[in-house]
Amino acid sequence: MKKENKEASETKKAGKAGRKQEKDAGSKDQLKAEIKALRARLVAQQQLVREKGLPILVLVEGWAAAGKGSLINELISEIDPRNYNVTSPVITPEALSRYPFLYPYAKAIPENGKIMFYDSGWMEDCVRKILCRDITKDAYKKRVRAVNEFERQLRDGGYLVLKLFVDISEKEQRKRITALRESFETSWRVSPEDLWQMDEHDAFRKTYESFMEKTGEVIPWHKLDGSKRSLAARDALKLLVTAIDKALAEGRYVGKPFQEDFPLLKMPKLRNVDLSPALTDEEYDKELKKLQKRLGELHNVIYLKKIPVILCYEGWDAAGKGGNIRRVAKPLDPRGFDVMPIASPEPHEKNRQYLWRFWTRLPRSGHVCIFDRTWYGRVMVERIEGFCEEDDWKRAYNEINEFERQLTDWGAVVLKFWIHVDQDTQLQRFNDRQNTPEKAWKLTEEDWRNREKWPQYEQAIDEMLEKTSTKNAPWFIIESNDKKYARIKALRIVIDALEKACKERLA
Amino acid sequence: MKKENKEASETKKAGKAGRKQEKDAGSKDQLKAEIKALRARLVAQQQLVREKGLPILVLVEGWAAAGKGSLINELISEIDPRNYNVTSPVITPEALSRYPFLYPYAKAIPENGKIMFYDSGWMEDCVRKILCRDITKDAYKKRVRAVNEFERQLRDGGYLVLKLFVDISEKEQRKRITALRESFETSWRVSPEDLWQMDEHDAFRKTYESFMEKTGEVIPWHKLDGSKRSLAARDALKLLVTAIDKALAEGRYVGKPFQEDFPLLKMPKLRNVDLSPALTDEEYDKELKKLQKRLGELHNVIYLKKIPVILCYEGWDAAGKGGNIRRVAKPLDPRGFDVMPIASPEPHEKNRQYLWRFWTRLPRSGHVCIFDRTWYGRVMVERIEGFCEEDDWKRAYNEINEFERQLTDWGAVVLKFWIHVDQDTQLQRFNDRQNTPEKAWKLTEEDWRNREKWPQYEQAIDEMLEKTSTKNAPWFIIESNDKKYARIKALRIVIDALEKACKERLA
Repeated sequence: MKKENKEASETKKAGKAGRKQEKDAGSKDQLKAEIKALRARLVAQQQLVREKGLPILVLVEGWAAAGKGSLINELISEIDPRNYNVTSPVITPEALSRYPFLYPYAKAIPENGKIMFYDSGWMEDCVRKILCRDITKDAYKKRVRAVNEFERQLRDGGYLVLKLFVDISEKEQRKRITALRESFETSWRVSPEDLWQMDEHDAFRKTYESFMEKTGEVIPWHKLDGSKRSLAARDALKLLVTAIDKALAEGRYVGKPFQEDFPLLKMPKLRNVDLSPALTDEEYDKELKKLQKRLGELHNVIYLKKIPVILCYEGWDAAGKGGNIRRVAKPLDPRGFDVMPIASPEPHEKNRQYLWRFWTRLPRSGHVCIFDRTWYGRVMVERIEGFCEEDDWKRAYNEINEFERQLTDWGAVVLKFWIHVDQDTQLQRFNDRQNTPEKAWKLTEEDWRNREKWPQYEQAIDEMLEKTSTKNAPWFIIESNDKKYARIKALRIVIDALEKACKERLA
Repeated sequence: MKKENKEASETKKAGKAGRKQEKDAGSKDQLKAEIKALRARLVAQQQLVREKGLPILVLVEGWAAAGKGSLINELISEIDPRNYNVTSPVITPEALSRYPFLYPYAKAIPENGKIMFYDSGWMEDCVRKILCRDITKDAYKKRVRAVNEFERQLRDGGYLVLKLFVDISEKEQRKRITALRESFETSWRVSPEDLWQMDEHDAFRKTYESFMEKTGEVIPWHKLDGSKRSLAARDALKLLVTAIDKALAEGRYVGKPFQEDFPLLKMPKLRNVDLSPALTDEEYDKELKKLQKRLGELHNVIYLKKIPVILCYEGWDAAGKGGNIRRVAKPLDPRGFDVMPIASPEPHEKNRQYLWRFWTRLPRSGHVCIFDRTWYGRVMVERIEGFCEEDDWKRAYNEINEFERQLTDWGAVVLKFWIHVDQDTQLQRFNDRQNTPEKAWKLTEEDWRNREKWPQYEQAIDEMLEKTSTKNAPWFIIESNDKKYARIKALRIVIDALEKACKERLA
């Protein structure tokens, strides 16, 4: 690691000192006492962690048989079970996984006030996959980038992220694995992959080291010497307790906004959009039938080629999102698509990083997911209503671009629609809803309140379109003063994008 | 079906009449108009379904290529996407599934005010498995029983459950499958299982029929003629609209309690439990070490033999549940167990049948799940605080026994602990917590309030122990005036049960 972290080097020193001590007589008792004291501090910290709602993510990576499991056990042994969880994501072969590689890890992030221990995670998933030739070098690079983005987003969203790597030598690993294999009760714990790792120790070490170097700048790595279990436990406890103290003392961290250089498409200002385009009933019926037929055919192909498709709908109230979505959904096979209506977050969603409730709603590859409102709530309603801090929504443009790039890197087609009407049309539709009993439920007090904030929203939307229409996940303004025109336009865009994707991808 | 349902026979009549009509000239337009009118009613019903919070589950089963998907598409085409979802559970080979067979279906139940369409579900999962010889006859029988229990529990919990079976003849199926296989874009839709079903038409028909007969008493089946798509759509729409009207008119259904004959273990009344047993520190330390070592070994075996283990902790406030759980969890490999703290349900949990939040927390086979409080909240706090109706908690004894039998039929070891102290000991511990700063957070106003209701709780607990200590999922009263004694006792019970299970099961 070039930028060697101060804390990490202190730990190393502490580790060395510890190992020297152990040789001394009586040092064993001293170590025990030290561990006991650290655990007591951790127990005492729990209450504050809960009260302050600090979410803590502890990633424990390392060699097979390095003792990751027993290390975690040492860390949790005195914590109230209500305050922590342990997750051990199953690493599936690439061909079997139908989700972005970060999906299981993103799904498992802790909620505010809780600690989540990852018994190995995204590091192992990257290192093993590249060494297995399960993914290309290019895909590996993208993964490394995604890992850095993911970790930074968590940190910037107030998460305490602690990354530990439990190291053992080739000799030590061979000794341990041999011992495990000798007993019936433990031999199953050694997987063929572990044996393979043992034989390819050098290649693994090199890749582990390089991965740590590439992902150590945002959140530093802490190496632990796994050869002495108690020392590793003591060091890990000390790191955790110190990090929690620091986080509690400093208060919730809010990351500063910054703009990465994404290839952005030029978008017009909303006020300059010509909303006059319209279709006759005849044109509409003819086109609708033709396009829906074509979309139905394409749905078969994208299912077959396992292309994930994510359609994002945003738009003014009463602009016609619902009807537009229904026309696109109509020709799709219901077992291959989902519409995800996004309302205000529920408590368990509010208690996690804001993208979590979208990560957990991603479609399997080959499926279509239509989001009826999306993660862009962050830079619209949350910005305008003050549901998050200014730095939060300012940072979100970049975070969302990263998130969407992770989706398209996974292979997804991501299309974003702004369903657009002017103020007069909206008023007309509001009045129409108010006067039609079976439509009245669609209109709420909130819709009227939002309408009053049109200028603020327009500003926010213009900024959103300007900053997040990337080449890989573009925005489309759908002129919807005439709903028929809007539906046909959206259908055409979807079909064009799917035809292109189907042509480019192998089955 | 012996007890032919009135509605179902009306549908059949309607179906016959419809088929006759179709032959008439002009009847096509009439049918179209009929479908349009039914859809309009369904659209209008939506608002009421949402307002009244009626959860609707529509199960669509039937032959491969019978048109289940397009039927669902006809049903949903005008519904607001916010109000419904479609789920198509993936039927995995028995050997690959690590959960009870109802798990994916129970996970997908709709929340109040929403409609969930199952694009095939538990029927197909049962019929295909028995015809594949994937499960034994005995397992099949248990599945049928579980299906009846599951459906009844949903109905009794206020769900509208509608079950449709789309029927086509052998000839029709062969024609359709052949057509699908002829085009590149659709040939992948035909699975080897579909071809196999086509060739074994008679065996499938017999098993479908017998399954419907065995599961038609609680919630009736409705057969639809899949050979004419529009007629099937019309009939399904009519059934759905009629059922919703009925449910809305009658108001939320609350099932009556009834007691099935479960083999119950005799439990003592709480007031007769001798709470004097205690251990010296020396005895405790020695036993704890020995038992934890043994439990650690057994954890390996149950992991290897894929035995699911579910430990349920209930007990008085300050009885020592947390410390007891930690002693049991300590020797377990963290990647093989989870502690599930159960607090009051969150909104999205309250909006579903009360067992849903436990179904979704079940461990994978081979894993240990420790529930810190459980589904028994239904017959304790929910009963006493009036969070559900009297019939609800009275019915729950039976429903819980059924749920737990489904777990043990799946292969789970289910053990339930009541951590018991007397009132004096509780008071002492409350005071102790109050006077110790680092423990004070554990004590809440609610604990004091609950303490005042000790007599009501004691009555509820006695009734719970009496009615739900089944042979397959027994209760154990853990005397915890002395916490050390309690921990050792719980550990011994867990070890005994796991040793027995490990001996009985093959790897």
